[in-house]
Amino acid sequence: MSHSANILAMHRDMHTLFPNRPARWNLLEIDGDVEQTIAARADEVDILLSASIEKLDKDMLARFQNLKMIASISAGFSNIDLDACRSRGITVTNAPGMNSGDVADLAATMMTSLLLQMPQSHSYIMNDEWVTPAGPIRHSLRGLPVGIVGLGAIGQEIVKRLIPFGVDLKWWGPRPKPGIEIPYIDDLEELASQCRGLIICCRPDHTTRHLISEEILDRLGPDGVLGNVSRGSVVHEVALIDALKSGRLGGAGLDVFEPEPTNSARWADVPNVILTPHQGGSTYQTLFAQAELAQSNIENFLDGKPLLSSVL
Amino acid sequence: MSHSANILAMHRDMHTLFPNRPARWNLLEIDGDVEQTIAARADEVDILLSASIEKLDKDMLARFQNLKMIASISAGFSNIDLDACRSRGITVTNAPGMNSGDVADLAATMMTSLLLQMPQSHSYIMNDEWVTPAGPIRHSLRGLPVGIVGLGAIGQEIVKRLIPFGVDLKWWGPRPKPGIEIPYIDDLEELASQCRGLIICCRPDHTTRHLISEEILDRLGPDGVLGNVSRGSVVHEVALIDALKSGRLGGAGLDVFEPEPTNSARWADVPNVILTPHQGGSTYQTLFAQAELAQSNIENFLDGKPLLSSVL
Repeated sequence: MSHSANILAMHRDMHTLFPNRPARWNLLEIDGDVEQTIAARADEVDILLSASIEKLDKDMLARFQNLKMIASISAGFSNIDLDACRSRGITVTNAPGMNSGDVADLAATMMTSLLLQMPQSHSYIMNDEWVTPAGPIRHSLRGLPVGIVGLGAIGQEIVKRLIPFGVDLKWWGPRPKPGIEIPYIDDLEELASQCRGLIICCRPDHTTRHLISEEILDRLGPDGVLGNVSRGSVVHEVALIDALKSGRLGGAGLDVFEPEPTNSARWADVPNVILTPHQGGSTYQTLFAQAELAQSNIENFLDGKPLLSSVL
Repeated sequence: MSHSANILAMHRDMHTLFPNRPARWNLLEIDGDVEQTIAARADEVDILLSASIEKLDKDMLARFQNLKMIASISAGFSNIDLDACRSRGITVTNAPGMNSGDVADLAATMMTSLLLQMPQSHSYIMNDEWVTPAGPIRHSLRGLPVGIVGLGAIGQEIVKRLIPFGVDLKWWGPRPKPGIEIPYIDDLEELASQCRGLIICCRPDHTTRHLISEEILDRLGPDGVLGNVSRGSVVHEVALIDALKSGRLGGAGLDVFEPEPTNSARWADVPNVILTPHQGGSTYQTLFAQAELAQSNIENFLDGKPLLSSVL
């Protein structure tokens, strides 16, 4: 291919993430909305800049007859039909492992907030239940067992953040790993039974769909709390809501939902929850770092050099 | 004095904190309420078990004609008229430094929650503002400047918990200290100007009353957040509420209030707050440890041995 390229960003403001893009990038201007631009100019597109939230399925990809590369600024690529890309020889790159610290910040904070019963404390005051100078007595975090489901880059960052709180950390994943400082429990149900808190940060795929079932939630129990920063699909959300409403689960911190966006009606009567709008990795710092990696991947692709993080 | 003692616990269930009390302790049974018991039996009391929330002023102390010792299970003793105790030769002990970790757990969690804008995120979902798959983009915690006001035992425990989040820690106190790993800023206004978050964990006394004034809050500014786990008196609460309501301050996490208990009417229209009912150090683990120290102090007092933590 030529040494310059027509590039389409799949989201209106995405180009602002590439303040120092090379002159040979011809970023197609979005005229009207992205859909209109695709309708008018799909044939011209060499490279798509993806952000994991738009659907690049077979039908969508078929519209880009001359597409040679998809450069995603996200770690995940479940939005992309890889089989279709493979059969057409389309190169796919992603930007993995750059938001682990940001996601861990949120996960660790959700977990300590829930173990400290902050939603309940806030309600206690706002319901005027605090009537004598001495407030309610709580449990210390020291020694409380907290389980981590999936000990990848994010899980390991969560461990670093929770160690100073003195919680008793353990983890489960499909297989043990070398060099991990916290104990491995080889059965998820057993982990849930042992723990007061469970943080979900495993890879979301078909093997982990609804991994956190009604049974796991019941093992966690009325004093147990759940945090999820993976994907909504990993948790059986209907079972979770039921467990929270009936008091069979003590609380939940959720950054991810099924589907997204979630809405207020779904959570209006659900007690002891902390909800955030899929914000774990969505920081300016991470986005710019991811965009920088995508830019390097595109440059290397155009120059025929090895890709830095390729999926296909 | 004799080797046994009549002991009055100033709160109804306080005796449950002393499951292994010595046989020579004659704990006066509370008949009706504590006030009625005092009215009937104050003359018999050798030792008072205090918990810092009841007022032991000159008038109250005058009712205990034979009082020889006050053993507090709290670190603070601002509830006790020390001059009156001194003039009557009453020994006073406290239980300092045992809840630092618990208070730090709450303070650190409040700070990261506020920096992550968790109250705003929760409202964003519950107000149905989340309407497209991509949620709002936030700032990473990495590098955000966070100031600590008062670097005693609690402050140092907060530092340990916040370091893994990568925030840029600094502190102010009335004087620098040796061996501290984070930079000292010698002016509180300057610290507030430099920081996005400010955690108040200094000693509450007449020198720190309303230390956090309207001016300090304005230095912190619209993007700034305040956490207070010291005492309500350290923060000018009316100025704080005004700054939050007008958007001149970004958020606040408060475990302490002026007065306590606080009530819902005071906070109903105040945005971006996390409120907890003076729960920092009120854990079972800390309470039992403090009671154990109080018990040792009483035992040593009865045996004429050196006290472990004496105030007077």
